[in-house]
Amino acid sequence: MFTVHGKSDSGNCYKVRLALEQLGVPYRWVEVDSTKGETQSAAFLAKNPNGKVPTLELEDGGFLPESNAILHYLAEGTPLLPKDRLGRARALQWMFFEQYSHEPYIAVARFILYYLPPDSPRRAELPRLQERGYKALAVMEQHLAREPFFAAGAYSIADIALFAYTHCAADGGFDLARTPAIVDWIARVRGQPRFVPLPA
Amino acid sequence: MFTVHGKSDSGNCYKVRLALEQLGVPYRWVEVDSTKGETQSAAFLAKNPNGKVPTLELEDGGFLPESNAILHYLAEGTPLLPKDRLGRARALQWMFFEQYSHEPYIAVARFILYYLPPDSPRRAELPRLQERGYKALAVMEQHLAREPFFAAGAYSIADIALFAYTHCAADGGFDLARTPAIVDWIARVRGQPRFVPLPA
Repeated sequence: MFTVHGKSDSGNCYKVRLALEQLGVPYRWVEVDSTKGETQSAAFLAKNPNGKVPTLELEDGGFLPESNAILHYLAEGTPLLPKDRLGRARALQWMFFEQYSHEPYIAVARFILYYLPPDSPRRAELPRLQERGYKALAVMEQHLAREPFFAAGAYSIADIALFAYTHCAADGGFDLARTPAIVDWIARVRGQPRFVPLPA
Repeated sequence: MFTVHGKSDSGNCYKVRLALEQLGVPYRWVEVDSTKGETQSAAFLAKNPNGKVPTLELEDGGFLPESNAILHYLAEGTPLLPKDRLGRARALQWMFFEQYSHEPYIAVARFILYYLPPDSPRRAELPRLQERGYKALAVMEQHLAREPFFAAGAYSIADIALFAYTHCAADGGFDLARTPAIVDWIARVRGQPRFVPLPA
């Protein structure tokens, strides 16, 4: 059985939970609180030298880090990964977009507003994070105005990867009323079989 | 035939050139200078709404952005992508590591020192970029002290993705003499069949 080493209210960790639930794959969950330094312990660094959650413990005792690599591993051979070469590349296109152009702004804004005290000096980063985050949302909005999902016309791990921090973007101060196609897509993702919400 | 819309001295664009050359796939190259705003023109944004190079123009006229998604698309069914499920996930693990934990520090430090004038205020970012970049190099060094390549024991697109900005890390002020296993790996990558260097 798989074991997920993760922080339940992290969007990157939620991606793995949502995929496992939707695929009906049994798993154990070990809570690791990165905000308390638990990803920097010698024991955790032996699992993932990059010191990040989620990290998937495989049945043979190996460890696989990086949320979107875990999604791809879990989804191969299932309906969550497109069947054709270009469809798979499109899923990865949006998953790399998520990690480079979306998460570093939208997830980090949420982190600052959600986890840090109101007088944190990191609030000075928010204007830049808002500007870049809204740019990522605009790219998504343009796509979703024409297509129901991100890759190959069907729900896939690209939607899971982007849903994780988009649906809770308000936690980072983003107003999704500006992007109605994203709001509709969020409802479509919530309506997928075996959907589970981000734990509070 | 594929057309690469790219900036020749960008590491992200070089990844695509190196893979195409090593696979023996013919292509055209259209130079796009992002430092002159050419990725923000209406004509370019119609190709990639996220306004970044490289963007691969497919034979059917479609466009595929994101360097690492392009690598995966080109490598499917070739020796550059591992044959087994876990090997493919390991390649993606390192490619997501590259885009999240490596490129934003090592490539950005290079950009500041290589493209911007010596009195650029962005030089104030360098201490943080150096700290994070050396952390990424340490994670790579630990892996390469035990393994010849990043995924499944053989040269793959994970090596191409990480080589692009690692081999020229000195441009960003990084001293690779501190990481001898990386220096040895760089020599192994340079020794691969059909290797081409980053254009000057």
